[in-house]
Amino acid sequence: MARIVMKFGGTSVADLDRIRNVAGKIKREVDAGNEVAVVVSAMSGVTNQLVAWCQSLAPLHDAREYDAVVATGEQVTAGLTAIALQELGVPARSWAGWQLPLHTDDAHGRARITGVEGDTLRADMRAGRVPIVAGFQGVGPESRITTLGRGGSDTSAVALAAGLKADRCDIYTDVDGVYTTDPRIVARARKLDRISYEEMLELASVGAKVLQTRSVELAMKQRVRIQVLSSFEDKPGTLVVDEDEIVEQAVVSGIAYSRDEARITLRQVPDRPGVAAAIFGPLSAANVNVDMIVQSVSAEGTTDMTFTVGRSDLPRAEQILAERSAEIGAGAVLTDPDVAKISVVGVGMRSHAGIANTMFGTLAGKGINIQVISTSEIKVSVLISAEYTELAVRALHTAYGLDA
Amino acid sequence: MARIVMKFGGTSVADLDRIRNVAGKIKREVDAGNEVAVVVSAMSGVTNQLVAWCQSLAPLHDAREYDAVVATGEQVTAGLTAIALQELGVPARSWAGWQLPLHTDDAHGRARITGVEGDTLRADMRAGRVPIVAGFQGVGPESRITTLGRGGSDTSAVALAAGLKADRCDIYTDVDGVYTTDPRIVARARKLDRISYEEMLELASVGAKVLQTRSVELAMKQRVRIQVLSSFEDKPGTLVVDEDEIVEQAVVSGIAYSRDEARITLRQVPDRPGVAAAIFGPLSAANVNVDMIVQSVSAEGTTDMTFTVGRSDLPRAEQILAERSAEIGAGAVLTDPDVAKISVVGVGMRSHAGIANTMFGTLAGKGINIQVISTSEIKVSVLISAEYTELAVRALHTAYGLDA
Repeated sequence: MARIVMKFGGTSVADLDRIRNVAGKIKREVDAGNEVAVVVSAMSGVTNQLVAWCQSLAPLHDAREYDAVVATGEQVTAGLTAIALQELGVPARSWAGWQLPLHTDDAHGRARITGVEGDTLRADMRAGRVPIVAGFQGVGPESRITTLGRGGSDTSAVALAAGLKADRCDIYTDVDGVYTTDPRIVARARKLDRISYEEMLELASVGAKVLQTRSVELAMKQRVRIQVLSSFEDKPGTLVVDEDEIVEQAVVSGIAYSRDEARITLRQVPDRPGVAAAIFGPLSAANVNVDMIVQSVSAEGTTDMTFTVGRSDLPRAEQILAERSAEIGAGAVLTDPDVAKISVVGVGMRSHAGIANTMFGTLAGKGINIQVISTSEIKVSVLISAEYTELAVRALHTAYGLDA
Repeated sequence: MARIVMKFGGTSVADLDRIRNVAGKIKREVDAGNEVAVVVSAMSGVTNQLVAWCQSLAPLHDAREYDAVVATGEQVTAGLTAIALQELGVPARSWAGWQLPLHTDDAHGRARITGVEGDTLRADMRAGRVPIVAGFQGVGPESRITTLGRGGSDTSAVALAAGLKADRCDIYTDVDGVYTTDPRIVARARKLDRISYEEMLELASVGAKVLQTRSVELAMKQRVRIQVLSSFEDKPGTLVVDEDEIVEQAVVSGIAYSRDEARITLRQVPDRPGVAAAIFGPLSAANVNVDMIVQSVSAEGTTDMTFTVGRSDLPRAEQILAERSAEIGAGAVLTDPDVAKISVVGVGMRSHAGIANTMFGTLAGKGINIQVISTSEIKVSVLISAEYTELAVRALHTAYGLDA
């Protein structure tokens, strides 16, 4: 008998037939003698609709109200899944984030989990009832509903798996595993049997949208074994595990891309101590995540500062920079939402030289200009014009010998 | 300065433009110096969709899960309305039932309010923030979400008005007041300026769906003055007030009808003590409301028992009666969902004879057969075949001199 957390994404619960299918999968695990807890996302499209309503009423809406609105999607799915499971003769009940409770901080719209109280849930599971937990949501310090950011249901599932000391966290989704790159772009992309937390983390953070970044961070920290698998097929998926569990390491495991970023350039920023803090402090305070940062060498006492933010944060970032521009003493603020970040990822990079150079050479060979470069121990990322996304990904997939 | 609870129904918040319109109406009351609390329903159509999903997954679904699912509709509207109001510069925040909390019993799907904690809300209002309360919902004794039954947002609003000792509870809806009958059936129906709680109660309970029955009961008990008015026009509506506030009483105030009922007949029920309890006890235990009950005179030791239930309760009622039939010792169970209840209502009836007789004569004159009759102090109701609904209502409206 194993203790398993099963998480079903939006496309897996997109309509009533699929919810019935999900109930069948849950029943099968229960019938096999496993102790099961379930986390569900909103029905596909629902969250987008709710977000669109909030944005249409006010582009800079109150994040606390946004959370109260969008968290409803998961509550609906949890209730419907409980009903579908009961109909198959399996006792079940739905749990909203505030009912567990799943505690978070008060960073509405992208709250961080501060604790999961698993006692009530465990008691319910021991009594033979399957808990169906609404993903993506929690409750903040002032008893207001919070959400964990897009894809947050993955993080809910991993947090629950850690809290329940589950043997595995199965993430059911619309893909059957983690690929060397997006198969919609590269037909010869290959499914990986296993991938390390570190690599998955880099892939997730640069837009291989299989798992939310924070869910992988949490899994790595809490040593939760994740399996990514399809809700529509019956076959094993990709295991996301500790590096030690992977026998043969490839130098490069995958190529990822992200079109969810926007570039901001501040011209003629005074080149003096404290100016970076004056720019990024207010952005951070407003919960705007800043990614790749490049500062050019100073000329005539000023410098240009370029960085990327999530595309949806661009209006907020622009507003903040406009308000602070006098204080910062910068010149024009240039923005470009039409950029893509392309990344080459692999733990094998640590012991191999020339990975970055292969990337730059390959892109140059296709005439693609590199706007920003950033590197980590197991990743090289570049920012390019969005129109070259597919071309770049295909060329790199071939260059690193990943084609099937 | 007055303290006002404003309640907006589903059609009043059907889309973003209407929500903006609602925000404008709230702002106007705030700008006029009034202290305002708001209760909102789900966007028109949303609740029906959620209910349909539950029923499609399981006709006899777990009412606790049903509540968790359908309560989300109001939470969405509350959040969106708060955002729209903030956008007009009016501080606001949404409140879910469990956040207030609005306590109820555990009769899921039709829970009764057991208390509203108004302190937090009053503090928020004193601080100049408009509370936008999700109607229709509360929280049960075990911290599970409950709903108050269809139209329950009216009851939420009246309970809130009582809890806040509000001067008035304005119920904004898609009609501009209470009419002598449904204007869609009788073009010459007239709008009433005032109507007594007692009359409104009878009209509400027989299907003049302007206000939920329980909201009127609660208003009568707590002496909450209700105004029913249109969210789409700027003119006074109908005041629902104490009988003493109405100077000139009509004998008959209105004609109501309901097609939401179904008839059940139990044949050959043994005519012995305790048989009625054996029938209606289990129905009551299952929260099936039984309305008009007729028992014919006994023949050969058995009798026929006819009664009506809400049409949506018919499958549940049939199942219960089938399970209990051996115990009851009855013969066949006949059901007919195609019935309508027509009622003539007026406080003036108390001092006037012949009201019922006019009704029976008028219906007979149109060739309409009466299946069941029930009367109260200020109401006469008959059950007829549903196909005669419009004909009966028109004939009675004319017969009682109500035509404009």
